[in-house]
Amino acid sequence: MRFVIVGGDAAGMSAASRAKRKMPEAEVTVLEQGYDVSYSACGMPYAIADPERSMQALVVREARAFREKQGVDVQLGCRVEGIDTGKGRVYGTSQDGESFQRPYDKLLLATGASAVAPDLPGFDLPGVEVLKNLEHGRRIKDYLARNRVRRAILLGMGYISLEMAESLRTLGIEVAMVKPGPELLPWMDRSLAELVRVELEENGVELYPGREIHRLESRDDELRLICGAGELNGDFVLAGIGVRPNSELAADAGLDLGPKGAVAVDRTMQTSHSDIYAAGDCADAYHVVSREKTWIPLALRANRSGRAVGDNACGGNVRLDGVAGTSVFRVLGQEVATTGINADQAREHGFDPATVSIESRSRAHGHPGAQAIRVALVGDRGSGRLLGAQMVGGEGVAHRINAAAVALHAGMDVEAFSQTDLAYAPPFGPVWDPLLTAARELLKKLES
Amino acid sequence: MRFVIVGGDAAGMSAASRAKRKMPEAEVTVLEQGYDVSYSACGMPYAIADPERSMQALVVREARAFREKQGVDVQLGCRVEGIDTGKGRVYGTSQDGESFQRPYDKLLLATGASAVAPDLPGFDLPGVEVLKNLEHGRRIKDYLARNRVRRAILLGMGYISLEMAESLRTLGIEVAMVKPGPELLPWMDRSLAELVRVELEENGVELYPGREIHRLESRDDELRLICGAGELNGDFVLAGIGVRPNSELAADAGLDLGPKGAVAVDRTMQTSHSDIYAAGDCADAYHVVSREKTWIPLALRANRSGRAVGDNACGGNVRLDGVAGTSVFRVLGQEVATTGINADQAREHGFDPATVSIESRSRAHGHPGAQAIRVALVGDRGSGRLLGAQMVGGEGVAHRINAAAVALHAGMDVEAFSQTDLAYAPPFGPVWDPLLTAARELLKKLES
Repeated sequence: MRFVIVGGDAAGMSAASRAKRKMPEAEVTVLEQGYDVSYSACGMPYAIADPERSMQALVVREARAFREKQGVDVQLGCRVEGIDTGKGRVYGTSQDGESFQRPYDKLLLATGASAVAPDLPGFDLPGVEVLKNLEHGRRIKDYLARNRVRRAILLGMGYISLEMAESLRTLGIEVAMVKPGPELLPWMDRSLAELVRVELEENGVELYPGREIHRLESRDDELRLICGAGELNGDFVLAGIGVRPNSELAADAGLDLGPKGAVAVDRTMQTSHSDIYAAGDCADAYHVVSREKTWIPLALRANRSGRAVGDNACGGNVRLDGVAGTSVFRVLGQEVATTGINADQAREHGFDPATVSIESRSRAHGHPGAQAIRVALVGDRGSGRLLGAQMVGGEGVAHRINAAAVALHAGMDVEAFSQTDLAYAPPFGPVWDPLLTAARELLKKLES
Repeated sequence: MRFVIVGGDAAGMSAASRAKRKMPEAEVTVLEQGYDVSYSACGMPYAIADPERSMQALVVREARAFREKQGVDVQLGCRVEGIDTGKGRVYGTSQDGESFQRPYDKLLLATGASAVAPDLPGFDLPGVEVLKNLEHGRRIKDYLARNRVRRAILLGMGYISLEMAESLRTLGIEVAMVKPGPELLPWMDRSLAELVRVELEENGVELYPGREIHRLESRDDELRLICGAGELNGDFVLAGIGVRPNSELAADAGLDLGPKGAVAVDRTMQTSHSDIYAAGDCADAYHVVSREKTWIPLALRANRSGRAVGDNACGGNVRLDGVAGTSVFRVLGQEVATTGINADQAREHGFDPATVSIESRSRAHGHPGAQAIRVALVGDRGSGRLLGAQMVGGEGVAHRINAAAVALHAGMDVEAFSQTDLAYAPPFGPVWDPLLTAARELLKKLES
């Protein structure tokens, strides 16, 4: 069995490892256009901020280890340019510039996603970077080491930009964040987004929402971003304003695409062609709340879907339920977490949402060191179902969100969720967990 | 409507508050034999250890506030000695030694549980205490302040003893723990209990399991505990070897009792007598995993069941699903959490359990400060259901257990649980949450 994998990060390498374990005699080939495989992309903002850590420490497993210990044929610097679905082969250009073709019995597209920078003048200037892969991370860390960066401009206010804002502040660099949209974290309940805004501003991060981006200029040894009616200056620009799935290969081969142009897959990760799978950030997924297709590129899904393909390419029948969109990030002193859908998304999917937002504490009454936790919940008036949860707080948020995520997978209604027996001890929360307090309040709204 | 409540802690005061909100014209009376209402009993070990905190700070709401702000008639020092179910009244002795009787339309028994000390010679000596109510807490804090306690002997190794071991070590006091049973935390997976044992011993706590308790003696200004073949000396003894429900009133009135002698209640908290409810530590509960009756006295259940009675006594119909037995405690540098049932309990309830124990980390690959987390899971080979989870780790355990607790409430099978979309970011865990790694391993066992 010839199993060819395009892309050597989380999804691709999970699939390769799993296939070799399940079917040791399989010929497993990974074709990676870059020179890194199997690294922790999510760790990059932290490694950039820490003088003690090299970017190389983010590599979980080197290509050589996959070759020598697992018998996976990993080809680096190897760019796949097309798929001949009729003949069952991929073709492209290898590291040394030669054309190659490689036949497959099963093919996995694990091509990931790309950071999108504005297609505007000046975004090719030195000191302007995006952050998506390890090579980007190395360039940024190197740039910060070699230049006296006093002030950075971050485009976009998504979680990567927010994590980078923390990293740069840790390094003593001034940070200005700018985006065309009018609101910080528009998907979030306003009362929670406000806590994040306060945290950023109290830590000296300047926020400029509602500024259209016009161009970048280099002037007087500085970068100047012309945006809205004014301009911002800095020594470094992080230019990622979003991500998009790398689905060109799939589109060119005539495979179906799903939301946001991601490769459409069924619950076994099979594309519209029976010998071709897609997994990781390039593929779509079912959402466990809406039960419809969505595109939410996150690391756990990449690993899990890659692993499933490793099984299925070797004759398995692993079916994945889908994603709840659970995610967490830290921004300075606050943990920010979400799972499921918000009220706007709920309306789009035909629900009749009710929402609450409550404030609670991270430790018991009178226990020292307690910090505020704010919880927003969304439920459906029609069915009583829990649809989503969001949380912001100084501690105790990152893992708390998982209780709501499991409830979403189980299709639990708010009443049942409000009755769950959650852990209590004074150092870890109030007797009524913040999620339970919020669920009780939401229940009143659903019943009224 | 005359609503009489016996006992003024979590369950009793929750019921009183709820009833007055639901039916402001109700005559709500709380008869409390002690002089404290509505305090955080679980906070006592922490307040004892902290010179900056008074025990009084654990009081969430004073009796006066209940009287003046909520119109609840709170009677302190008022001991209820019997229930005349025929005439619908309770009788007893009030604070000033007078007999009283009080008629009710609805009665709530919220009499709590008591710490059990050995009925052996010497346990009435000065310096020998149990810790269950706030008066005990005050006595202990006072004793430690007034005496030069260098070494304490703790009987029993349950969570209160373990929290007190931490408190006493924080105060610089040597601690020896002794129990007749052969094992520390016998309900816990051995690989997890071992981590707790190491944590205790590395922090200078001496452990003496398997020692039968014979008697206490006062000798040379010290207390000596004669136990097993030897003896232990100290200046202070915490003598609680367990807890039992305070169900004498209910038993004398002919009400049905459940497991461990707790007052038997249905899902509305009604006892075998239609006008009498029981809630909190004195009452039993349905277990959401075994679906049978159990007695697990914990603070959230006390609050929740009291609140339900407040509704139901005023004509409501709140039904409680039951408990999963979710709990967490901290012992020195480790968080210890559990939910559901262990393999032995699973067998008792007719399941065919499979168990796994895995080690994972509290932060992502390469992220500084990661600590070990060990997870044990129990599943049923017959149905594939998840039955229980236990966790020990240096951080990230207390709230993580809640994801498993929700899965138990939902009756989720291990396969579905292994597919849940849990939050990931490098400061908070590995990509595969420790619970997911454990679920994957358990799935292999269930499928083999």
